Amino acid sequence: MKSSWQREIETVNEALDSYLPPATTFPPEIHQAVRYSIFAGGKRLRPLLNLATAAVFDVPERHALPTACALEMIHTYSLIHDDLPALDNDDFRRGRPANHKVFGEALAILAGDALLTLAFEILATETAAFFPAQTVVALQQEVSKAAGMAGMIGGQVVDVLSEGKPLKAETLEYIHRHKTGALITCCVRCGAIMGQATKEELCLLTSFAQKIGLAFQIVDDILDVVGDEKCLGKKTGSDVSKKKMTYPALYGVQQSQVMADKLLAEAFTAVEYFGERASKLKQLANLLVKRQQ
Amino acid sequence: MKSSWQREIETVNEALDSYLPPATTFPPEIHQAVRYSIFAGGKRLRPLLNLATAAVFDVPERHALPTACALEMIHTYSLIHDDLPALDNDDFRRGRPANHKVFGEALAILAGDALLTLAFEILATETAAFFPAQTVVALQQEVSKAAGMAGMIGGQVVDVLSEGKPLKAETLEYIHRHKTGALITCCVRCGAIMGQATKEELCLLTSFAQKIGLAFQIVDDILDVVGDEKCLGKKTGSDVSKKKMTYPALYGVQQSQVMADKLLAEAFTAVEYFGERASKLKQLANLLVKRQQ
Repeated sequence: MKSSWQREIETVNEALDSYLPPATTFPPEIHQAVRYSIFAGGKRLRPLLNLATAAVFDVPERHALPTACALEMIHTYSLIHDDLPALDNDDFRRGRPANHKVFGEALAILAGDALLTLAFEILATETAAFFPAQTVVALQQEVSKAAGMAGMIGGQVVDVLSEGKPLKAETLEYIHRHKTGALITCCVRCGAIMGQATKEELCLLTSFAQKIGLAFQIVDDILDVVGDEKCLGKKTGSDVSKKKMTYPALYGVQQSQVMADKLLAEAFTAVEYFGERASKLKQLANLLVKRQQ
Repeated sequence: MKSSWQREIETVNEALDSYLPPATTFPPEIHQAVRYSIFAGGKRLRPLLNLATAAVFDVPERHALPTACALEMIHTYSLIHDDLPALDNDDFRRGRPANHKVFGEALAILAGDALLTLAFEILATETAAFFPAQTVVALQQEVSKAAGMAGMIGGQVVDVLSEGKPLKAETLEYIHRHKTGALITCCVRCGAIMGQATKEELCLLTSFAQKIGLAFQIVDDILDVVGDEKCLGKKTGSDVSKKKMTYPALYGVQQSQVMADKLLAEAFTAVEYFGERASKLKQLANLLVKRQQ
């Protein structure tokens, strides 16, 4: 994935660097903690999805970048809090010690809070420099709903409360649709909103995003079972050892892969309407579902 | 304080109730956790300050209410995270067990995250129903900066990192100006922004808010030393036992009270320009600094 999207990933990284206060800003500890997790080698899937959707509507990349980065900040905050001892209790993330292992729990909690807050600041300042205020407010609505209790946090809550309990298909789907799906869908919808998409276009892109969001999570679950630890940068089998609900645990690896492929095909159908304009978006979706890490 | 502002407090409570999803919403645990802390008997100082400032400009109360409630949500989120074992490790808040003692650390962390996110959603939806999009974006800028690393979180970080270290006057002032001062100032500024205040008016009100914010915190510190535990709803002397930096520890109780009174007088001078229009604001400031709990 890195090779074909290297330029975009570097552009996102540079923009993130420019939106974050320098690591020497007082009090430096929080800025170091925030930067540690933001620059921990994430795949930048969410900003890339946002940029690729904005590109469907010919939104200039530099106009979409602040929103793309705000979405990555929200994703990173969720990972920092997710890894905390009280939640998933993960000591490693992307092959490096988790934020709280390096900076302590107090700073990890505050670094997560800071990134969530900064995401909304970036929308209200940097995004607002390129779009009408009404578009900014629409983006703020979209992001706050996707990240909130009816979205990502709701999924996180059910995930936490379900650990160690017997698997149920509907609960598993709820968790995935909310914990990861809501923000992935939001990335695509925000790209469409910046592009002044029509209601019909927004609907098609939402369907596309929901399908690849779920496919992405199924692949994530599969990789936890069959993946290469070096490639993933985290211990495989960690979901099994925590008795987490996963697709392979519920349906087996082979059937899970069939489901992911089917979702990808459906996602492609959803954006046929856009023709060539959606080619980058499809290319990205393909990489996400076929990835090995 | 309760008697003279009972109507406004009830109005804020009813509005908060209407903006929070019902406690039975799935997953109910998070909604119960959020409601537990929001309805824990807070003084509603921040929303009242916001409403009183909006009233200076004749903004209808119901137009200002969503913003006032969003600010209270941010305050409540900060208390929930602040009380966590990794941070202040407080088991009680307002005379009741802290959020994490009732719902566990995982849900307390997520309830804080949820309230911060919901605050931005309320601004982007409920506030946006009454004000032009440009005003909403200005409010979002204000709130995100005040709550972020250059504001409240910055103060929280320095507070956490300073525990047990020797007191320094400049560090103490940094903590107070940021940890509590930034959001209090934000409440006043947001009221002024909703009222389409001129730059000069905004400047005067900011000065007023900074002074009462600091006075409020000094009084808080004093009450921790001399206050009645029943009145305060928390153990007094907790700052001393944690070797927290406080004004009484640095200057003594008497001198601290002199400082608070002087700040209050300066705050009154700052809003003289508004004449009778600022009477409710001055009345509120007076109650805050003269309070016994």
